[in-house]
Amino acid sequence: MDWEVKHYPEYWGGKKLAYPHVAPEAPKFARSVVVGNLVFVSGCTGQDTLTGNPTPKNFEEQMVSALDKVKAAMEEVGSSMNNIVKTLMLLRNLDDYPRMRKTELEYYQKHAPFLVDNPPASTFMQVASLAKPEFLVEIDVIGVLKRE
Amino acid sequence: MDWEVKHYPEYWGGKKLAYPHVAPEAPKFARSVVVGNLVFVSGCTGQDTLTGNPTPKNFEEQMVSALDKVKAAMEEVGSSMNNIVKTLMLLRNLDDYPRMRKTELEYYQKHAPFLVDNPPASTFMQVASLAKPEFLVEIDVIGVLKRE
Amino acid sequence: MDWEVKHYPEYWGGKKLAYPHVAPEAPKFARSVVVGNLVFVSGCTGQDTLTGNPTPKNFEEQMVSALDKVKAAMEEVGSSMNNIVKTLMLLRNLDDYPRMRKTELEYYQKHAPFLVDNPPASTFMQVASLAKPEFLVEIDVIGVLKRE
Repeated sequence: MDWEVKHYPEYWGGKKLAYPHVAPEAPKFARSVVVGNLVFVSGCTGQDTLTGNPTPKNFEEQMVSALDKVKAAMEEVGSSMNNIVKTLMLLRNLDDYPRMRKTELEYYQKHAPFLVDNPPASTFMQVASLAKPEFLVEIDVIGVLKRE
Repeated sequence: MDWEVKHYPEYWGGKKLAYPHVAPEAPKFARSVVVGNLVFVSGCTGQDTLTGNPTPKNFEEQMVSALDKVKAAMEEVGSSMNNIVKTLMLLRNLDDYPRMRKTELEYYQKHAPFLVDNPPASTFMQVASLAKPEFLVEIDVIGVLKRE
Repeated sequence: MDWEVKHYPEYWGGKKLAYPHVAPEAPKFARSVVVGNLVFVSGCTGQDTLTGNPTPKNFEEQMVSALDKVKAAMEEVGSSMNNIVKTLMLLRNLDDYPRMRKTELEYYQKHAPFLVDNPPASTFMQVASLAKPEFLVEIDVIGVLKRE
């Protein structure tokens, strides 16, 4: 396999997250970039970037929304949620750690059964804040296009 | 060389860190995942995950314990501590920075002499907290199986 | 392409950032490490590591200084700023987020025009602190040697 690079744009409310589609001060990044077999997915939060509706206040809802975005990003590149190999889990509140792991498991049971017995490598930290004070979780993922 | 993916499970006190071996709310991750020549090692803290004994309160002891885990993970995949290429160093207290670098150096002098003159690329930050309030350091590592 | 590893040392004020060129307690890391097509650049802050002058207090100046270091690192390995594929953006103060994105854009417009419409994948967090309390921003980058 080669080392080809592919760029997958991020869209919020139908707008490409790049200048001049959004303001200079706005977030601007790719949904993912593929390098060879590796998929670098931008950090996913619980923000509703499709409709622009307010971010849910509930931790589990934010976490599922973030995982939904990771899943969509992995599928967009022709892979799947089963092919996540590394996560960086960022929490706003340390108390959410057990909820984070439980919600992650339930999501894998539904959408990525391979990961239940073969979870990704993972690093965890509590941050001072994410991009908005109401964001409770952000998930940064490295995946692969295929495992063999 | 190819892009093969290999999964190395993490064990705490003999239990595989995957569901249903541990509770849904518990930490669940791989010790490492190898993708081609790259080794993604899960963040290592000073927690005594072999015996379950209390985590040492002393910074240097936590750091050595974390580095011991990195070393074991690198050796498990058939590589060595000398083949670390990138670290993300997370500290609970900024005052521990000089101790962190000194302990890292002493560890490399003993166990990874190549890194003394060829240290890994590295990024540093102080976090709000790690997975438990008593954790003082976490080390997230990317290594390689071989350098040439 | 192969999986060759190349190490590019970091120098501060002409001193190689490795022991015994600097003290055991000092920062010690590579400017970058290349693995195959991937370039892992050490986290770049606004610190003036050439002259040792005080770090600018102004956010935009720190950010440009950090981006200058990323650019130099990418060029040193034979690549360019256009070939950044992933960033981890670390801020000391959340209020600087809009300034961070605007300064990043202006830098790309001048020095990496490809990234204006094709920004890197990116993850953001506010940290408790960076290596020194006066550091306002740190940028951790993964790039590629070439895109095809």
